[in-house]
Amino acid sequence: MCRAGVPYATPVSFFHCPCRRNAGYRMDQTNPVTPLSHQHVTFPDGLQLDCGFHLAPVDVAYRTYGTLSPARDNAILVCHALTGDQYVADPHPLTGKPGWWGRMVGPGLPIDTDRFFVICVNVLGGCMGTTGPRSLRVREDGTEEPWGTDFPAITIRDMVRAQHLLVEHMGITRLLAVVGGSMGGMQVLEWCATYPEQVFAAMPIATSPFHSAQNIAFNEVSRQAIFADPQWHGGRYWECNEIPARGLAVARMMAHITYLSEAALTRKFGRRVRTTPGRGATGGPGSLFGEMFEVESYLRHQGSTFVRRFDANSYLTITRAMDYFDLGAEHDGDMSRPFRGTPTRFCIISFSSDWLFPTSQARLLARALNQVAANVSFVEIDSDKGHDAFLLDEPDFDRTIRGFLCGAAEHAGIG
Amino acid sequence: MCRAGVPYATPVSFFHCPCRRNAGYRMDQTNPVTPLSHQHVTFPDGLQLDCGFHLAPVDVAYRTYGTLSPARDNAILVCHALTGDQYVADPHPLTGKPGWWGRMVGPGLPIDTDRFFVICVNVLGGCMGTTGPRSLRVREDGTEEPWGTDFPAITIRDMVRAQHLLVEHMGITRLLAVVGGSMGGMQVLEWCATYPEQVFAAMPIATSPFHSAQNIAFNEVSRQAIFADPQWHGGRYWECNEIPARGLAVARMMAHITYLSEAALTRKFGRRVRTTPGRGATGGPGSLFGEMFEVESYLRHQGSTFVRRFDANSYLTITRAMDYFDLGAEHDGDMSRPFRGTPTRFCIISFSSDWLFPTSQARLLARALNQVAANVSFVEIDSDKGHDAFLLDEPDFDRTIRGFLCGAAEHAGIG
Repeated sequence: MCRAGVPYATPVSFFHCPCRRNAGYRMDQTNPVTPLSHQHVTFPDGLQLDCGFHLAPVDVAYRTYGTLSPARDNAILVCHALTGDQYVADPHPLTGKPGWWGRMVGPGLPIDTDRFFVICVNVLGGCMGTTGPRSLRVREDGTEEPWGTDFPAITIRDMVRAQHLLVEHMGITRLLAVVGGSMGGMQVLEWCATYPEQVFAAMPIATSPFHSAQNIAFNEVSRQAIFADPQWHGGRYWECNEIPARGLAVARMMAHITYLSEAALTRKFGRRVRTTPGRGATGGPGSLFGEMFEVESYLRHQGSTFVRRFDANSYLTITRAMDYFDLGAEHDGDMSRPFRGTPTRFCIISFSSDWLFPTSQARLLARALNQVAANVSFVEIDSDKGHDAFLLDEPDFDRTIRGFLCGAAEHAGIG
Repeated sequence: MCRAGVPYATPVSFFHCPCRRNAGYRMDQTNPVTPLSHQHVTFPDGLQLDCGFHLAPVDVAYRTYGTLSPARDNAILVCHALTGDQYVADPHPLTGKPGWWGRMVGPGLPIDTDRFFVICVNVLGGCMGTTGPRSLRVREDGTEEPWGTDFPAITIRDMVRAQHLLVEHMGITRLLAVVGGSMGGMQVLEWCATYPEQVFAAMPIATSPFHSAQNIAFNEVSRQAIFADPQWHGGRYWECNEIPARGLAVARMMAHITYLSEAALTRKFGRRVRTTPGRGATGGPGSLFGEMFEVESYLRHQGSTFVRRFDANSYLTITRAMDYFDLGAEHDGDMSRPFRGTPTRFCIISFSSDWLFPTSQARLLARALNQVAANVSFVEIDSDKGHDAFLLDEPDFDRTIRGFLCGAAEHAGIG
């Protein structure tokens, strides 16, 4: 049997390759697909998960940018959000689009790869090379099949444990910084709670110390949209060579609204209409489908491009991990407890128009850190771009990241 | 051919009755269903719609409460929201639940049926007896079939025109008040813009003079969830004796989140978990579906009960009408123009935690009315219950409605 990570010379069909542990697939059903080989490490002993399950082996796929210093003290771990991946600053291998944080990570940029060694890991449960629902498991009869929905429930802490395996494997005993937005920020917090001595500085951005009822509710509707798609086939869609594209697109469309502010949507689209003649048999003036608002067209585009790069069962797994996240509950209801005596310096960032992870939630985190006299600063960036502001052009945000990391490097004694 | 409104003695299957123009159906596929007869009037000449289509005949289904005075001057029209209907203050004929505004409309209540004659009309495009996508049309070959998605696109103004037919039919030349929340508030505004001399007082509640980009976006995701359900069958689900229940449930679940505030969701559900053992083959500890948050259970209940009473094509039609609504655009970009010289006295009400129709939008309306020196008061009710506050127990809100209507009655010279 070929091992994970071995590149294929021959294109194979989606979900028909005998070894898919470390492969991603183009999801266009009409064409042969090229499996991807991701930079990765396999950990045969795997991980003990919070749910009690021992997952082994575990593949951890990642990208690095810049050069690790001889003292191995200049590493910054960037943690990605729900639908992100390790391709932070180079073109995405499936879509060809620029890296999701290419404006932040690179030579001379706020996270300066001329100076720092940047690591980004595809999260456990993901679909870009790290072990997840699309990975193969060995059944009792010795044959292999994808985990699908039998993939164990994972937590944000499990994701961090997988990253920790890689960081140790690289011989890095302390990260100069851990940085991440949204679900990436949850990982930042779990790093500081679980491996406090190994994080010199931390930047939790546009995040919260727990997932709120409203956010759980939105995630649940996303999941129901996927479950409702008959092409999901109870999670075993690979057997039919199908993907639940429509359900996943609806999930993505809804989530996308929550990433933007009302002001941003109004500025970008307002109530502008595009008339699309002959849109199917039911189109035409005066009919239900004769016109389309610009914002609808945009959302449909978001939905349809997303399904080409993301696995539905990964979406289910990762949204569940976000929902489980509750730093206080993990520590007997005391959110500040994991940070007692922490040596880490924190910079918490929120955005004024972010209603998915509002400033009020970041403030709870700041208070918990203050209660244990942690070294913490808290910056609310004035922006009307909503939750997605952390991915967009916000000069104040860039300056905050650059300044904090420079200060951290200085205090850590890095030249 | 039997006419609309004729009650049936024999139960028939969903969508298999030869005359359904004025019938609603229990949607439980496992039982024979009882068609409903709604109080209604048929207008054979129908309506000229904004889209240019002449819709005829038009049935207008309604309920009344209280007694019309001999002078016919004590009528209050209550306009319902997206998924409401005419059953304001008596049990719903399909669900058996109390009327949706039973706490507001009744003897001695703020909209006092001992004093006022209250009318509520099922909106055009609806599914509780007024002409809509489920109503029959006559095809060229003389046979009949439901309109489905060929039902013409309608506007809020079209809904108001249908209500106006009924009000005139009742011999009422002036309504003492028109009152409504959410989409009901849009109808209130269209009444005042279209028939200013016939509205003495108006209460637009938790509403906006236009549908925002964010609200259009949420509606679009709702529609896509319905389109994605293969049981929608391109809108012709009656042919298969099916309903797109899963898509409609997802639409309802998502919409329901937008009706509540984050604070209300946190207070009602927080992060409380219910463990449901044996939830299908994939359930069990540590699996993806082993646990469920209370908020998820609540949303699923909301989704599943909704599909029993609401028609998917009506949902598509009515959300479209909301999206089209833009009072300014209807009047050359000047939102205040339709109110120039208006004799109507206005009381605008918003709720502080309503993020679907926020106070900022109500304020735009208040400013437009001020610009033309209209008689307008504006009350923001302090509430953490979100958009749905107008349906819930808010004593300040009740007092505002009671006080404004009493004042209006006094000024109108009603004893």
